[in-house]
Amino acid sequence: MKLPKPLQNLKDSFEKLPGIGPKTAERLTFYLLRVPQSDLDLFASSINNLKQTKICSICKNVGESDICDVCSDQTRDKNTILVVQSPLDVLALEKSGYKGVYHVLHGAINPIAGIGPEELFIEDLVQRGRTPKTGASDHVLGSDPKTHDLEVIIATNPDLEGEATAMYITEKLKIQSSKFKDGEGLKITRIGRGLPTGADIEYADETTLKRALEGRTAT
Amino acid sequence: MKLPKPLQNLKDSFEKLPGIGPKTAERLTFYLLRVPQSDLDLFASSINNLKQTKICSICKNVGESDICDVCSDQTRDKNTILVVQSPLDVLALEKSGYKGVYHVLHGAINPIAGIGPEELFIEDLVQRGRTPKTGASDHVLGSDPKTHDLEVIIATNPDLEGEATAMYITEKLKIQSSKFKDGEGLKITRIGRGLPTGADIEYADETTLKRALEGRTAT
Repeated sequence: MKLPKPLQNLKDSFEKLPGIGPKTAERLTFYLLRVPQSDLDLFASSINNLKQTKICSICKNVGESDICDVCSDQTRDKNTILVVQSPLDVLALEKSGYKGVYHVLHGAINPIAGIGPEELFIEDLVQRGRTPKTGASDHVLGSDPKTHDLEVIIATNPDLEGEATAMYITEKLKIQSSKFKDGEGLKITRIGRGLPTGADIEYADETTLKRALEGRTAT
Repeated sequence: MKLPKPLQNLKDSFEKLPGIGPKTAERLTFYLLRVPQSDLDLFASSINNLKQTKICSICKNVGESDICDVCSDQTRDKNTILVVQSPLDVLALEKSGYKGVYHVLHGAINPIAGIGPEELFIEDLVQRGRTPKTGASDHVLGSDPKTHDLEVIIATNPDLEGEATAMYITEKLKIQSSKFKDGEGLKITRIGRGLPTGADIEYADETTLKRALEGRTAT
């Protein structure tokens, strides 16, 4: 027995989403069947309008204008750039109270999935600060260490792809800064690794513990 | 920090779906952001067109025409009506090889959620067969026991609401059939209860075991 065509179409669309299998897709489809048409219209139009989102020309985060809220905020420290893989990471980090700016790569290097450095906004990161933008990004990479110290904090995910991306970015940034009189104006750091809050040492995996020991701090 | 409006709108729509929380809604939204616009258009149109589905005028199942495939199938036994709560139940039962017809209630009686008998297609079930439909449903309830024996198998879910619905339907059907010369033309049954295939008696709950013992069959 086959599903009626309108239902099958929607089920197929749901099934393409990550983490949604045939059973869940069926359940969601039949759920929507009982929802008022006005709600369906709203849902459909929000899908249609999704791409009206803009990519910030500076940090590549998603936003509603050419320059996102963070990049246009004068109170934020433009000399600290936090490099993340996705806009979702920005949302999470914003909650932590971070006050610098971001750079969103939109992925990580993954040769198996065919994602190379050129698929990501890596070159944009390297070039960032080379052309000073008024009111948005006024540091010039390595130009004047005293007044324009730039810190790039790499916060890619702690997995294979994220690590590879971090290494690649580090290399690229070092090459770029070495072109200037002195590369001391650029500081490249990695986000701290160790035990998450609320974790139990007993159940922590060996890599986490190794990193936690390496990353120990003086009290 | 707030999400850009187009993203927030879609996230809100996803969050309304059953089993999808804020985190999953966010993940799905950002996933769709990387999907080609053509796929988004397809998704949006399948949501918009969902209600083009029709409700079968006989069995109330969802379909593409006024009379569904099952009801218009001449090879199916029109004198056996399986009463289920949802179209998803029909999909599951079709796989079991059932050859009768269905009646879809589209829910169960649930006073807490404000769903009374009149919200469901119960009256339609009671009336079914009262007005013979050519080629679709030609039995007349209780009119001639010998040629028109009608069996109604109630297969609502084995939970509180399903049981209440089953009891209500049984009563209604009995009242209806008693209006005729003899009510013997109508047989009301409940779908069998017991251990599911692959289950372990050791871990079965007491109600299931009680029902399984009550429903024992001769070998």
